[in-house]
Amino acid sequence: MTIEQANRQFLDNVQAGTAHWYDIRPAHEAIAAMNDYTVLHAGPPLGWDEMCGPMRGAITGACIYEGWASSPEEVERLATSGRLLFDSSHHHHAIGPMSGIITPSMMVNVVRNEPFAIDTCSTLYMGIGKVLRHGAFDREVLDKLRWMNRELAPLLQTAIQAAGGIDIKSIIAQSLQMGDELHNRNKASNALLLTSLVQHLIRAGEKDIAIRAVDFIDKAGHFILNTVMAAAKGMLDAGANIPRSTMVTAIARNGYQTGIRVSGLGERWFTAPAPMIDGVYFPGFGPEDANPDLGDSAIAETIGLGSFAMAGAPAVVEYIGGTAQFAMETTLQMYEITIGEHQTFKLPPLNFRGTPLGIDIRKVVETGITPVINTGIACRRPGVGQIGAGLTAVPMACFTAALEAFAGQQTA
Amino acid sequence: MTIEQANRQFLDNVQAGTAHWYDIRPAHEAIAAMNDYTVLHAGPPLGWDEMCGPMRGAITGACIYEGWASSPEEVERLATSGRLLFDSSHHHHAIGPMSGIITPSMMVNVVRNEPFAIDTCSTLYMGIGKVLRHGAFDREVLDKLRWMNRELAPLLQTAIQAAGGIDIKSIIAQSLQMGDELHNRNKASNALLLTSLVQHLIRAGEKDIAIRAVDFIDKAGHFILNTVMAAAKGMLDAGANIPRSTMVTAIARNGYQTGIRVSGLGERWFTAPAPMIDGVYFPGFGPEDANPDLGDSAIAETIGLGSFAMAGAPAVVEYIGGTAQFAMETTLQMYEITIGEHQTFKLPPLNFRGTPLGIDIRKVVETGITPVINTGIACRRPGVGQIGAGLTAVPMACFTAALEAFAGQQTA
Repeated sequence: MTIEQANRQFLDNVQAGTAHWYDIRPAHEAIAAMNDYTVLHAGPPLGWDEMCGPMRGAITGACIYEGWASSPEEVERLATSGRLLFDSSHHHHAIGPMSGIITPSMMVNVVRNEPFAIDTCSTLYMGIGKVLRHGAFDREVLDKLRWMNRELAPLLQTAIQAAGGIDIKSIIAQSLQMGDELHNRNKASNALLLTSLVQHLIRAGEKDIAIRAVDFIDKAGHFILNTVMAAAKGMLDAGANIPRSTMVTAIARNGYQTGIRVSGLGERWFTAPAPMIDGVYFPGFGPEDANPDLGDSAIAETIGLGSFAMAGAPAVVEYIGGTAQFAMETTLQMYEITIGEHQTFKLPPLNFRGTPLGIDIRKVVETGITPVINTGIACRRPGVGQIGAGLTAVPMACFTAALEAFAGQQTA
Repeated sequence: MTIEQANRQFLDNVQAGTAHWYDIRPAHEAIAAMNDYTVLHAGPPLGWDEMCGPMRGAITGACIYEGWASSPEEVERLATSGRLLFDSSHHHHAIGPMSGIITPSMMVNVVRNEPFAIDTCSTLYMGIGKVLRHGAFDREVLDKLRWMNRELAPLLQTAIQAAGGIDIKSIIAQSLQMGDELHNRNKASNALLLTSLVQHLIRAGEKDIAIRAVDFIDKAGHFILNTVMAAAKGMLDAGANIPRSTMVTAIARNGYQTGIRVSGLGERWFTAPAPMIDGVYFPGFGPEDANPDLGDSAIAETIGLGSFAMAGAPAVVEYIGGTAQFAMETTLQMYEITIGEHQTFKLPPLNFRGTPLGIDIRKVVETGITPVINTGIACRRPGVGQIGAGLTAVPMACFTAALEAFAGQQTA
């Protein structure tokens, strides 16, 4: 198989994928090798010493939530003693935005890529501001987590199953025609998710429980994001491990390093220091408070959403900064580092051209253009939470390292 | 006051208006001078002899629904005997899409423009295809009308009031950033309406009733359209009757004639024969089945929505035909016949430029550009319903007649 054939196979597999959100289950049931004291996190694997403030904050909250510790000091001792078993979620068919912490008793979304029989799990979206994934862990955050796990998740599970599952791929396609880029703007997709589920939520639960669920999903604004991330990973994983393919299958950041994976290079991560974000800050915060780029949500860009689909979502610039013209130019630039256009995900302002699909490490190195990422900004201090949103780019060093490894493999 | 001052006053008034959907009530309570045998219709006033097939079909359904007749033949006799009291809805602070028939026992939306204390009523949206406003009147249509009036409307009334009313102006502004033009594309606005109401719908009724309501509003797709029309009329009426203003305050079609009203020319209609529509037909129908342009829904264009806002809604071309480029060009052209840009209604693809506002009869005549209208197509035969959607334009003769009358008034 030539490189071109391998990359064509990647495109075919990724586009043939589906995204059927069919279940919500506890992580220890849904995710393989998820034992007591297992802590999955965003981005490439790293140790406690390397972890940034928001990731440590989220782990602190998760350990207290699990009952493994009762204070940040105890969590620190657990972590440094080697008792906590850290691993990248990507190694477990799982994914989560920002610190992306998953521990065994957390409820997770389960999204299936049916033709390829791939199940991918993701955390439940918690809202913006002071939330676990951004490193906040006070009582309010843990109470909300408990409510989500004990009341919201079981209701949603019943509703999703009564609905026969929710087609996330279809919602993505529809909402790209409604001004979403599915990473930092999910206003339409979240509303479509809610309208798809609402009659089943009403039927599934007591009035008060249904009302709380509906109100939360609506106000959280981006509740659908985590299922979109699981959908994207599930579809991209169908394109992974194709020998000789130069296609990027994952972009993920742990707040310390940004890493990419490449189809023909298997499970390896190619990393570089995580960059800062050029962003719009919430009142009271500024660049001095910001953590470097963090989270698995760049899986959206990897499949051609987020910044890659910004031409269809000019209103996202109100959240992340920039102009409508800039949004258009960003998408046009991303076509220069991709080899295809999605057959289902279309951009009306470009006369329904498909979103840029298939990031080629060769094109990135040749053009000097690296993938742009629309993303949230976490406070670098544990316990605070989200402080803004903006734009960054994947470091070129990830691509040059990957291309070098690829070249070495070809000549080996 | 100069013409420019008068037109500035129009812009100020129209933009200061609000649109608070606060009630649903029977037409005979909500609308003044709505007695037995009163039949309000879309567009300029006309007699039974002049009425097109879909309008006669809708009147037939309405008379049977009211119990005034039991067959089309009886309705024909009632109409020709002079027993039915026909009038334009516009003369009663009311409005409706397509034939726009309102009879006393029908439930109507009530939308308030608060600073100007203007209440405007509209029919409840019934769905697409075989529906009353497009001239269908069989048992299925009348059963649906009964269900809407007896079960849906009371539930909605309770929910709207519990919500403290729904801000239609805010939903318009938000959904313009989500690919809606608010006339033929209402996918985002309808979803936002549903998400705003849903917890109140759950609280207001029995589970089964709430589920039927939620399912109907979701699937109807354009349920919000009629409240948007009432909102638009209420805001435009705040700019009516300003001496010397050359601003268009209404565009409305009765299927026989298209009429416009002009602020400085009061309640007069300036009419011309209603044009045909260049459109996309549902399977099994073609231009030979089409009725000329019909309905009050061009109030959307009058306030700068519909075709005027198409630049922000390229996906509407999948319904009405054309390309994304055409959608952009149409909006840009509409700036040539308007004098302002809306401060609240913004178009992201034009870098958040306000929608074109304030159609000036002088500019229309000077440029030779008449307002484009995105609209549905009714079957010319009574009893069939909607057969497509497309584009048309207001006849130039409406504007030349209005400008002549205006000139005569200035020199009088």
